[in-house]
Amino acid sequence: MKKLMNAPGDFVDEALDGLTMANPSIVRDGENGRVIRRAEGARKGKVGVASGGGSGHLPLFTGYVGQGLLDTCSIGNVFEGPNVGSCMDAIKLANGGRGVLRLYANYGGDRMNFDMAGEMLEDEIRTTTVLGTDDIASASPEESAKRRGVAGIVYAYKIAGAKAETGADLDEVTATAAKAVAATRTIGVALAPCQLPGSAKPTFTLGDDDIEMGMGIHGEPGIWRNKLKSADEIADEMLDRLLAEAPKNAGSEVSILVNGLGATPLEELFILYRHASRKLTAAELTIVQPLVGNFVTSMEMAGASISLCFLDEELKSMLAAPAYCPFWRVG
Amino acid sequence: MKKLMNAPGDFVDEALDGLTMANPSIVRDGENGRVIRRAEGARKGKVGVASGGGSGHLPLFTGYVGQGLLDTCSIGNVFEGPNVGSCMDAIKLANGGRGVLRLYANYGGDRMNFDMAGEMLEDEIRTTTVLGTDDIASASPEESAKRRGVAGIVYAYKIAGAKAETGADLDEVTATAAKAVAATRTIGVALAPCQLPGSAKPTFTLGDDDIEMGMGIHGEPGIWRNKLKSADEIADEMLDRLLAEAPKNAGSEVSILVNGLGATPLEELFILYRHASRKLTAAELTIVQPLVGNFVTSMEMAGASISLCFLDEELKSMLAAPAYCPFWRVG
Repeated sequence: MKKLMNAPGDFVDEALDGLTMANPSIVRDGENGRVIRRAEGARKGKVGVASGGGSGHLPLFTGYVGQGLLDTCSIGNVFEGPNVGSCMDAIKLANGGRGVLRLYANYGGDRMNFDMAGEMLEDEIRTTTVLGTDDIASASPEESAKRRGVAGIVYAYKIAGAKAETGADLDEVTATAAKAVAATRTIGVALAPCQLPGSAKPTFTLGDDDIEMGMGIHGEPGIWRNKLKSADEIADEMLDRLLAEAPKNAGSEVSILVNGLGATPLEELFILYRHASRKLTAAELTIVQPLVGNFVTSMEMAGASISLCFLDEELKSMLAAPAYCPFWRVG
Repeated sequence: MKKLMNAPGDFVDEALDGLTMANPSIVRDGENGRVIRRAEGARKGKVGVASGGGSGHLPLFTGYVGQGLLDTCSIGNVFEGPNVGSCMDAIKLANGGRGVLRLYANYGGDRMNFDMAGEMLEDEIRTTTVLGTDDIASASPEESAKRRGVAGIVYAYKIAGAKAETGADLDEVTATAAKAVAATRTIGVALAPCQLPGSAKPTFTLGDDDIEMGMGIHGEPGIWRNKLKSADEIADEMLDRLLAEAPKNAGSEVSILVNGLGATPLEELFILYRHASRKLTAAELTIVQPLVGNFVTSMEMAGASISLCFLDEELKSMLAAPAYCPFWRVG
C-alpha cells in the first residue's frame, strides 16, 4: 500500500504537526510533543478528562481534544500506546485542580502505562480510570470488562466531557463516564487491511471475496470469516448481536454510530445506516442524534462498525450538550 | 473491491435514503427523489443556488445542501450526471422568486442537462450559470474555461451560498461565484483506483509503486505517472504548479484545502498540509481558514488534491460566514 509520507519514523510527528497547524484550537505539548491539549490549557476548577492511545486512528484519539470533550490526549506511535511520560504529561496538563479522569480504550499497553503514570502522580493529582470496553466481539458478556474499546469510546468522550463542563466533581464525572461505557455496544466488520508505515506487509490478509465479522481495529480476530454478504444482511447480523446485548435497564432511546474504518466510502455507511435505523425502529427504539462517518479509523482499513449507546435522561442531555473539536461539533 | 451494498442498481437511492434519514436538515424530493433540498424549502426572497453531479463523491455533491451553502442538488447515478428532469426539479425547488444560480462542475453531460433544464424553465425562472473549472491539470492556462471542476467547487459553494444569504440579487451572486471560481486552483495526485458498484474492474490501473500526478477524480489522465515520491516532494510539486498559476491580481491571503479522495488516511493529509502550509508561508502568503479532510471523494480511490483559493476581502468574508450542512459547519 502506497503512503503519502516521508520517513516512516516521522509519520506520527509530522501528522501531529499538520493536525495542530491546521487546527489552532489544539496544540502539541509534553515530552517530545506527544500530548495534544486544548490551546487555552486546563480550565481552573474543572475536572480534567485525559485520554491516550496509538496513532493511526484519526480522528481518534487526538482529534477529540476540545471544548466539551477531552482536555488532553497522549499519543503513541502507530498502533502503539503512549509511553509513561506522555501519560503523565497528559494528566498534568489536564489538571485544573479538581482531579483528572483517565478515559481510554481497554488495551494492555495503554492500561499499564496510564496506571503507572497515575501512581507516579498520586501525591499531586487525584485521578480515576474508566476504560472503553464496547467491542462485543472481543470477549463474552460474562467477561465484558475484558472487552477492547473501539468506536464506542466516542460516546464516552462526549458524555464525560460534557459532564466535566457542568462543574461536576471527579466522582460524578467518573460515574457518568462509566455509565456511558456500560450503555454502549459496538461490533465491527472488516473488508480489507491497512499497512503500518514502513512495514512490508498489511496488518492481516483476507480473501478477495471474504469479510470478517467482529474483527478488531488492529486486525484482532473476530467471530467468523466468510464470503461477503449484502449490506442489509450484514447490518441485520450486527444489529441482532448488539440488541441481544442491550443493557437490562435500557430505555427506548438510543444513539447509533455507523463508523467507517478508513477506506469505506460514506455512501456505503449510509446504506448500512438506512437498514440499521429501520431495524431499530422496528425494535421500538427511538434514534437520538445518529452519527454516520469516519470517527475511529485504522488508516486505510476498509470496513465499518456499528455502535449503540442506550440513553437515559442524563446520557441524552450530555450527548446533546455543546462540544467542539476539529472533527466534530455538537450544538 | 468489496462493497457494503445490496443490488448495485440500488446503490445510489439507498445511500440517499441513509443520508437523509441520518440528517433531518435535508430531504429527497423531485422525480425519483433525485434532488436533495433543504428541509425547510426555498427561502422566499433569496436567490437560489442549485448544483448537481454524479454520485460516488460524498460529501460532494448532495452533502453540501444547507444554510449558507446550496439550496438544492440534483444527483445522478455513480459517476453519471443528473438527468434533465432532476436538473429542472433542482432549479424549481431552489427558486425563492429571485432567480437561481446553477453552480456545478464543468463536465459535458452535466452541462448539457443543466443547460437544457434552464432553457425549458426560462419563461418561469431566471437562471445563470457558473462552472467549477479549478483542475489545472485538465487543460492549459490558455484554455482554463475547458478545465474540469474538482474539489475547488467547495469554495464556490461556500462563497456563492454566503453571498445569496446576504440578500444579494442574482447578478451579484453570480458575479461573486464566478470570482470564487476564478480565484481557485486545484491539482490532484492518484495512488489507487475505485470500482463502480456492479463493475468487474477498477476505474483505472496503476502499478504497485506508481502514482499519477494530475489525474482527475474519475481517473481522467494526468500529467505524469511514475514511482511514488515522498510526501514533501509531492506537496512541493503540487504547490509549485498551483502557485505558478496564481491569479495575476492575487493578494497575500489564501485558503488551502488538502482533500482526501476517499481511502487516504487523515494522517497522510496532515503530513501533506504540514509541508504545503510551510511552503505558502515561505511564499509570503497568509493562510486563512485551512481545510483538511475528505471534502470531495471518489468512493475508495486513494490519493489527495490540494486547492488554493486566493482571497480578496469579499471572498474572505463570504468564506468565513456562518454555514451548516451535514458534513461541514462554519462560524
